[in-house]
Amino acid sequence: MQKWSWDQLAQWGLEEDVGSGDITSELTIGESLRGSLVLKAREPLIVCGTPILEAVYRQLSDEVGVTVLTEDGQFCGADEAVAALEGPVRALLTGERTALNVMTWLSGIATVTQQAVAQVADLPVAILDTRKTRPGQRLWEKYAVRTGGGTNHRFGLYDAILIKDNHIAAMGGISAAVSCIRHRVSHVMFVEVEVDRLDQIPELLTAGVDGILLDNMSMEELRQAVAIIDHQVFVEASGGIRPDQVRTVAETGVDAISLGYLTHSAPHVDIGADWEATL
Amino acid sequence: MQKWSWDQLAQWGLEEDVGSGDITSELTIGESLRGSLVLKAREPLIVCGTPILEAVYRQLSDEVGVTVLTEDGQFCGADEAVAALEGPVRALLTGERTALNVMTWLSGIATVTQQAVAQVADLPVAILDTRKTRPGQRLWEKYAVRTGGGTNHRFGLYDAILIKDNHIAAMGGISAAVSCIRHRVSHVMFVEVEVDRLDQIPELLTAGVDGILLDNMSMEELRQAVAIIDHQVFVEASGGIRPDQVRTVAETGVDAISLGYLTHSAPHVDIGADWEATL
Amino acid sequence: MQKWSWDQLAQWGLEEDVGSGDITSELTIGESLRGSLVLKAREPLIVCGTPILEAVYRQLSDEVGVTVLTEDGQFCGADEAVAALEGPVRALLTGERTALNVMTWLSGIATVTQQAVAQVADLPVAILDTRKTRPGQRLWEKYAVRTGGGTNHRFGLYDAILIKDNHIAAMGGISAAVSCIRHRVSHVMFVEVEVDRLDQIPELLTAGVDGILLDNMSMEELRQAVAIIDHQVFVEASGGIRPDQVRTVAETGVDAISLGYLTHSAPHVDIGADWEATL
Amino acid sequence: MQKWSWDQLAQWGLEEDVGSGDITSELTIGESLRGSLVLKAREPLIVCGTPILEAVYRQLSDEVGVTVLTEDGQFCGADEAVAALEGPVRALLTGERTALNVMTWLSGIATVTQQAVAQVADLPVAILDTRKTRPGQRLWEKYAVRTGGGTNHRFGLYDAILIKDNHIAAMGGISAAVSCIRHRVSHVMFVEVEVDRLDQIPELLTAGVDGILLDNMSMEELRQAVAIIDHQVFVEASGGIRPDQVRTVAETGVDAISLGYLTHSAPHVDIGADWEATL
Amino acid sequence: MQKWSWDQLAQWGLEEDVGSGDITSELTIGESLRGSLVLKAREPLIVCGTPILEAVYRQLSDEVGVTVLTEDGQFCGADEAVAALEGPVRALLTGERTALNVMTWLSGIATVTQQAVAQVADLPVAILDTRKTRPGQRLWEKYAVRTGGGTNHRFGLYDAILIKDNHIAAMGGISAAVSCIRHRVSHVMFVEVEVDRLDQIPELLTAGVDGILLDNMSMEELRQAVAIIDHQVFVEASGGIRPDQVRTVAETGVDAISLGYLTHSAPHVDIGADWEATL
Amino acid sequence: MQKWSWDQLAQWGLEEDVGSGDITSELTIGESLRGSLVLKAREPLIVCGTPILEAVYRQLSDEVGVTVLTEDGQFCGADEAVAALEGPVRALLTGERTALNVMTWLSGIATVTQQAVAQVADLPVAILDTRKTRPGQRLWEKYAVRTGGGTNHRFGLYDAILIKDNHIAAMGGISAAVSCIRHRVSHVMFVEVEVDRLDQIPELLTAGVDGILLDNMSMEELRQAVAIIDHQVFVEASGGIRPDQVRTVAETGVDAISLGYLTHSAPHVDIGADWEATL
Repeated sequence: MQKWSWDQLAQWGLEEDVGSGDITSELTIGESLRGSLVLKAREPLIVCGTPILEAVYRQLSDEVGVTVLTEDGQFCGADEAVAALEGPVRALLTGERTALNVMTWLSGIATVTQQAVAQVADLPVAILDTRKTRPGQRLWEKYAVRTGGGTNHRFGLYDAILIKDNHIAAMGGISAAVSCIRHRVSHVMFVEVEVDRLDQIPELLTAGVDGILLDNMSMEELRQAVAIIDHQVFVEASGGIRPDQVRTVAETGVDAISLGYLTHSAPHVDIGADWEATL
Repeated sequence: MQKWSWDQLAQWGLEEDVGSGDITSELTIGESLRGSLVLKAREPLIVCGTPILEAVYRQLSDEVGVTVLTEDGQFCGADEAVAALEGPVRALLTGERTALNVMTWLSGIATVTQQAVAQVADLPVAILDTRKTRPGQRLWEKYAVRTGGGTNHRFGLYDAILIKDNHIAAMGGISAAVSCIRHRVSHVMFVEVEVDRLDQIPELLTAGVDGILLDNMSMEELRQAVAIIDHQVFVEASGGIRPDQVRTVAETGVDAISLGYLTHSAPHVDIGADWEATL
Repeated sequence: MQKWSWDQLAQWGLEEDVGSGDITSELTIGESLRGSLVLKAREPLIVCGTPILEAVYRQLSDEVGVTVLTEDGQFCGADEAVAALEGPVRALLTGERTALNVMTWLSGIATVTQQAVAQVADLPVAILDTRKTRPGQRLWEKYAVRTGGGTNHRFGLYDAILIKDNHIAAMGGISAAVSCIRHRVSHVMFVEVEVDRLDQIPELLTAGVDGILLDNMSMEELRQAVAIIDHQVFVEASGGIRPDQVRTVAETGVDAISLGYLTHSAPHVDIGADWEATL
Repeated sequence: MQKWSWDQLAQWGLEEDVGSGDITSELTIGESLRGSLVLKAREPLIVCGTPILEAVYRQLSDEVGVTVLTEDGQFCGADEAVAALEGPVRALLTGERTALNVMTWLSGIATVTQQAVAQVADLPVAILDTRKTRPGQRLWEKYAVRTGGGTNHRFGLYDAILIKDNHIAAMGGISAAVSCIRHRVSHVMFVEVEVDRLDQIPELLTAGVDGILLDNMSMEELRQAVAIIDHQVFVEASGGIRPDQVRTVAETGVDAISLGYLTHSAPHVDIGADWEATL
Repeated sequence: MQKWSWDQLAQWGLEEDVGSGDITSELTIGESLRGSLVLKAREPLIVCGTPILEAVYRQLSDEVGVTVLTEDGQFCGADEAVAALEGPVRALLTGERTALNVMTWLSGIATVTQQAVAQVADLPVAILDTRKTRPGQRLWEKYAVRTGGGTNHRFGLYDAILIKDNHIAAMGGISAAVSCIRHRVSHVMFVEVEVDRLDQIPELLTAGVDGILLDNMSMEELRQAVAIIDHQVFVEASGGIRPDQVRTVAETGVDAISLGYLTHSAPHVDIGADWEATL
Repeated sequence: MQKWSWDQLAQWGLEEDVGSGDITSELTIGESLRGSLVLKAREPLIVCGTPILEAVYRQLSDEVGVTVLTEDGQFCGADEAVAALEGPVRALLTGERTALNVMTWLSGIATVTQQAVAQVADLPVAILDTRKTRPGQRLWEKYAVRTGGGTNHRFGLYDAILIKDNHIAAMGGISAAVSCIRHRVSHVMFVEVEVDRLDQIPELLTAGVDGILLDNMSMEELRQAVAIIDHQVFVEASGGIRPDQVRTVAETGVDAISLGYLTHSAPHVDIGADWEATL
């Protein structure tokens, strides 16, 4: 994750929040007034997004000191300090909401992800994200999944092959679709096929795919699919799996579980600012 | 909400999802193959974001026909159709996730907002959003709040005055802070002060503010505050109010309630694509 | 006004003025040659735009020292120094025109504004700007108005309501238009109505508006309007008011006067560069 | 002047004026209401900027009909129509100020330029602009000068050589500076030298320059300079020349006169919108 | 390859070539003059980049008719027509160089690629590109390689793992490096290791890699490596391989050959415009 | 050449090469590991593009030390060091390809240019480039030509006049075309006419052009043209001139030779990275 990207994220946030100026602070806070504040978790969470602090305040003032007391991926209990800031009060106030919005959003995703990962920590299964993200923010939301201990699935339609029923129908069958693709893509491309019936699997095992995505199957079907595939290729379960189902799905023996809710429905976690005496 | 903005949102989404190309579809779907699909609500929801369909498909093909069967702000029951698409299968597939990601995200916010609004439909109270949004997406998230029947609070630090304790402390008191600001800002600026104690209110009523934000008060305190203020200025309740508290807060008589969860924690709603026979 | 914005303004200016390079200076001035220059007002003016100096030269060289001898909003007599620069002659020459163009333009607006403000300094009236600005430069031109002691009217169509005759006609009357809007916009929105006849005013006073804009009225009409309104709402005079009319309009008792010429017709003021001995 | 550029200018203007929406019109004007308006000159002027009309309204609606009744560069008397618009009233209102701001600004420059050109229409002299323009708008302001019958001087530091006293001093003399440059730049580069004393001219005539800029000279000096140069190279007069001095300067026999005021101090001209009955 | 990208490429090209205007054509060619021209290959080549024609001329005029007579990837003999254009002569001239620059550049890469592919058409070997491309143009240059029948290697450092000696050294050995990575990346990631000695291979075969890159090996070493690996994983030869060595390398039995020269040193091919009678 | 431009070039390169992260290095190289490397010419070349090193590494880390051992335009023999880098190994690896791609590309153009210049070093003739460059990279490719000792022709259609046969035909003759243009463009514009027959020249000599471009003429025709023109205006030879023809063309006495191959077909030169012991 490159440094300049956090700067860009900070810029987007500041542009829409500060716009032509934080008029309240500009009119009331003298330029020389300095103060300090501590950002604290208001609930247990996995921290994610701390580099935004440096990025936000670098754009507002040369004089804000940022001390990150945790690091991305670390657990933080309720009331524990995440970071401390010191500098001109005006700049501290102007950037506070932008910085907190990023941290509460990304930490929310990391926290939900970590909860899924923790449920299956003793099993050889990966927790994957999906492409169900907000426009313009996929890289960030996938970063938060990694931070929470999850694994990224493909980043988009460009970096892996996922053959679905429409593609199969258009090619006149699974083998034809896989064969056509295998001969035309790079060796670095992972080729996965999505199936929703057990009888589709045997043909796939000889067609030369790298992985099979089992979509919306029952636990019983998943178990049978795992048995049929028998470690010949990578097996992934998918399809509206809820938090309380993750453990059960993992126990079917699949190699990975992809969970849309990690990104599309993780609530923000609560991180607040406690001001200390200003000077 | 201007047309070009939906185009930009579509562009952001397509850039990160499609990137250098939807390789699976390009390799398997013939250019002449046409098909149609219907986007359906998989759960009851308030529709929001339908203009993204035109915006996404205009960038992918001149030949996709988009028929929006609802309109932003309308209720849609489970299994009801939101929109129908017809055109080249390749383009339909390439844009599907980008379009759905926008619609499930914004409809999620609109739906949660409408649930809060419905709880207080018989009371003279406005449901407000906050600045707790994701970086770069505030305009969209606030649009979804409006679509759900809510009212937008200020868009940022630039378009209204909200005086908090730090500002008051820096100016040496509430009256001094308000007076200083009133003489230096435009007549179009709304001046609001945030308080968390009842004894702060009387001074405000003579200081010339337009509104008072009551932060983190108990129901009893809110009731007393409303009585003291007695319709002289606008009164807003705020501070971590949960969905199950909205009605109770409204019954204290405040003019408005601001709810961070509308934007920072609304889960996506489920909208899916049902493919019809391809040609 | 955020720091990064001056940088962007500097970048626009440098891109179009320097482009692929200041070929004359590159071919004639050795890299090690250093010099200094003083920027001087060539006529009396209100200084505005000095932060552009740091922004321009930061992009050209790490070695230019900028000493601003005034500050934005200060009066400067003819021949007084505004700022002093020291560093590589090549960079000094390359950035000179870009920096001066910004300062002479913004100081021009600030100076014209201050002249209007000075005319009415003893009266309780605000001098307002309008939306008559150049595309892409509104924030800057409104900053210059503030610098000259003026007050900003709304920044665009998005941050305040101004109901004109077309809107009233479409809604079937003033009361209907105001009522419709009041119930659908945020409490932070200022609602103003433009009228050009005295008989339109009484209905407005009961309709719940925040302000009334009196458009193109005679002095006598303005006086009568002020009497009718009697401080119940904010009163603004507008419509082609010339510099020599500002005092007379103010004496009618209006709360504010909006002047298009502050931004659309302020001539640049003259600021020049006096070179000192190079080393 | 390319078509896409007017679109970009329209986008800048609309972004800052409309922002998140023209709330007044959105709340009061029904989508089906149509109307028409005529843009009229309120004073005699040279029209410039009419392509902005198509560009602005293309971004707002597919249904606005734009009929330009003049063309850029044409004279228009007071009360004459410049263009007529027909379409949805909401779009017409939303784009009106953005379009007018461009046309009154550029027509202002074109009008002032044409006045200078008209003064010397019978003399073989060109009226030139300078680099004294606003950041980000040079191409537009120079287009307006051309539209008014003027001639563009160089566009920036990159497309022509202008050797000033600092460059000469750094190279140890005029001949050395010219010689050094001549051997290192492209044959397409025009090489001009700025002088402010007559005794600098003879050396230049043998040094191989393409033009001489006479800076801040008296009329008598200009006449003598023209005599000395005797059509061997191009001769340009420059330096704070006011509108009432243009004719006198031209009569000295110089080939061109560069005038900063064309761009830096032309006031906007007045163009207004007359609404016709809406439907 | 998405449509909007060709538009962006066209915009870049037009911005730098046309800038503020094609002054020669604007001053000499009447707006109503129409003409037609044919773009012809001046040497045998593989056509690539024809969509730029639509993209360039769409930005210049609504009236240019573009008829592409070939399609990307097709062979074209000397003097064969690639495309025909008809429309306003001014627009045709203004866009000609921008369009030709794209087509001669991309066709050059496609042609060189096809020559390498043709040499090994009877062998089961893929011709791969590298990351040796120009900044900002990688997607285009890799598109041209595909057009010429080549296969794309990874697009950047983000979409596949390539472990080189520095990475191995930092991890304390090949097995440690592979093991560490395998457990931390997505299943869609291809993991390849670069080796330059035969004795490094056996450890790799048990470490769980997807591919081995043989760097700068002799033909004899390549043959031995292929024998040792024995189809257990993907094998790629790399390292300064010249056009005249491609066949020999292929005959060693490797699965793929990556060639930097396809992108970094393919000369442009010659495509010219033959004008037909103008009207 | 401005500093911020190298930063932009670095950003383009890093965005497409690094994207969401250099995953191999992030997973294997500890943050504290430091090392050093030397960039060496692998063949004789003219160095060009060294400022990219600072620009690339400034975006990746604050801790990379860049020591440029040569300067742009200098000759470097095979195995000679161009630059040395020291710092975190992870950053060094991440930026290596982006930096080398710029340097091998630009040095390739500079080297080919210098070879042409060296052939004619004893003759009074300039080696010019053309507009045959890649989209978005013309400024860089023309910088490399200058670095190799060549001279830039016009940068685009906007900064010089080149009248070709279409323009002449549209105007009804050479004299008419030149006369029309001369009276309508700035004095800083160079006016050149392209001819391909000797009989077109005499008319030009009286028409007032600045230069004549002799297109695709034989050596004999070039010699005759030079004789006819007899130093009255600038003379340039053009049209598919190959490296082995440059000397012969120069000996015809033309003032300049424009060579498309300098930019459109210069192969990259080889520059490699030698790693030293890491710490």
